[in-house]
Amino acid sequence: MFLTTAELINTISVLGTAAFAFSAVLAASEKKTDIFTVVVLGVITAVGGGSTRDVLLDVTVFWSEELYYVWIAVVSSLIGFICVSFLKKRWFHTINLYVDAIAIAMFAIQGTEKAWSLGFGLPLGPIMLGIITAVGGGVIRDVLIQRPTLLLSKELYAIPVALGCTLHATTLALLPQYTDVSAIVSIALVIYIRHLSISKQLAVPKWATLNPV
Amino acid sequence: MFLTTAELINTISVLGTAAFAFSAVLAASEKKTDIFTVVVLGVITAVGGGSTRDVLLDVTVFWSEELYYVWIAVVSSLIGFICVSFLKKRWFHTINLYVDAIAIAMFAIQGTEKAWSLGFGLPLGPIMLGIITAVGGGVIRDVLIQRPTLLLSKELYAIPVALGCTLHATTLALLPQYTDVSAIVSIALVIYIRHLSISKQLAVPKWATLNPV
Amino acid sequence: MFLTTAELINTISVLGTAAFAFSAVLAASEKKTDIFTVVVLGVITAVGGGSTRDVLLDVTVFWSEELYYVWIAVVSSLIGFICVSFLKKRWFHTINLYVDAIAIAMFAIQGTEKAWSLGFGLPLGPIMLGIITAVGGGVIRDVLIQRPTLLLSKELYAIPVALGCTLHATTLALLPQYTDVSAIVSIALVIYIRHLSISKQLAVPKWATLNPV
Repeated sequence: MFLTTAELINTISVLGTAAFAFSAVLAASEKKTDIFTVVVLGVITAVGGGSTRDVLLDVTVFWSEELYYVWIAVVSSLIGFICVSFLKKRWFHTINLYVDAIAIAMFAIQGTEKAWSLGFGLPLGPIMLGIITAVGGGVIRDVLIQRPTLLLSKELYAIPVALGCTLHATTLALLPQYTDVSAIVSIALVIYIRHLSISKQLAVPKWATLNPV
Repeated sequence: MFLTTAELINTISVLGTAAFAFSAVLAASEKKTDIFTVVVLGVITAVGGGSTRDVLLDVTVFWSEELYYVWIAVVSSLIGFICVSFLKKRWFHTINLYVDAIAIAMFAIQGTEKAWSLGFGLPLGPIMLGIITAVGGGVIRDVLIQRPTLLLSKELYAIPVALGCTLHATTLALLPQYTDVSAIVSIALVIYIRHLSISKQLAVPKWATLNPV
Repeated sequence: MFLTTAELINTISVLGTAAFAFSAVLAASEKKTDIFTVVVLGVITAVGGGSTRDVLLDVTVFWSEELYYVWIAVVSSLIGFICVSFLKKRWFHTINLYVDAIAIAMFAIQGTEKAWSLGFGLPLGPIMLGIITAVGGGVIRDVLIQRPTLLLSKELYAIPVALGCTLHATTLALLPQYTDVSAIVSIALVIYIRHLSISKQLAVPKWATLNPV
């Protein structure tokens, strides 16, 4: 009845990849575009962050060995293209934001751990690569459809990811015996802040904002 | 009198690289720019796609060993800069579109084969890398000069490339004994659809278009 | 009292990395942004060019082993965020432009030498990678905050870098016994042209400009 940890991780990976692709369909639907570009953007959003991480780590790009990520992104993008008006329904959009939140939280911590296990620029490197894993695909998507990237958005998206990666990297450095607990707490932290942003419109506090002059 | 296959491939490579550089000069000429930026954009357009492919494949970037691609791009960009009004003549522009079409067709199939021979994420990986080889340089060019990328264009440019790569990868997977025939048919398919787009204004069909709402 | 060559190089590296981060804070301050994005842009501007170079060279990304570059970029970005009005003071901005000029000159020549020592696409490859080392981070920064990239600016920024890299690569090819002298002369050339641009408003000459039509 209950999922094992491995099954849970796989389920989140699959649903999260679909959520990434759906977010790309929604972003693409702001412009006049076509089914092929929707699939391209869906795939890039889903695997662009992890690909950038693996290129920087100089390891094999993950999806060349776990191709189901690409298949899921392709199929989800096609479904999203056909059902774009469904994707825009308020309730579905909200569910997608939460699935996306859970996925970026998990991918961020996985990215941090991958870089940490390779000893890549400890301790800052794993934080940077965790952030890139989670939000890199979305940034490339935004650049390609020429809308302001999520880095310029007032929404709390990359910041909770950065906090989660920093918390986890700090634990890995100082209290390595608590790695498992730290992973769960860090993922929960990202999801919680995303939840506050999605449902309570929590935004970047004023002291942390830089206004143009 | 007739070219061998190797000579034909080399000729297309050289002419195609020049056509890529000329397309960059034309794109750059939409903005106020300078000779150096024209050369940079020409080189990036010519070798950016193949470089991205090689970085993802984790193999040596092709032009570090076949530097004549860069030389051709540099010289073509300089010629294009000097003769920009010539480049804009209708008949020359049309020839350049056809040379470009032949080149993206060939580079796409070559990219697909390179990834396939390395067993990179079969069968989807070679399709993705074939597309990246052919259109990646043009996408980076468009991002750098901040015009809507070719992915957002109504023109049939990346789509025929994707169809050709998909056809060739399908043959490699199911009928590997017909690799050579498939390469020729796939290249012809890309060129034919590009021809319909260039001379008959064939565009993305309505059912495949996503309209903004 | 006097610095050794190694100490001088380290000092320029540290100050230059800070100057890159400050330039990112200033660029970010054109938009409504936040402290996290400022740090991200500061780090990307500081290490993005060298990272791109190392990915193309297929060697370990430099900052994974010299992490102080990232620390300096993070701390400088935070200081810049807090003191943004200070950064905009005319005299500080001018000093920052000169530190930046010295840094891009040195990083460009270092990048050229790194690629040359690896025999990467001689002789054009080292020139390209020298340019990427020096200006790549700034170009990525501009793309991410969606302002016209420095490649489209009338300012002489990438051009002096290209001239310096070309001069140094030419010496490495033809007069390898004068490598040290060439490095100094090439760095001086970059700084001198940047100086003419900063203080005398020297711009791209008319014959080298391409006007939109």
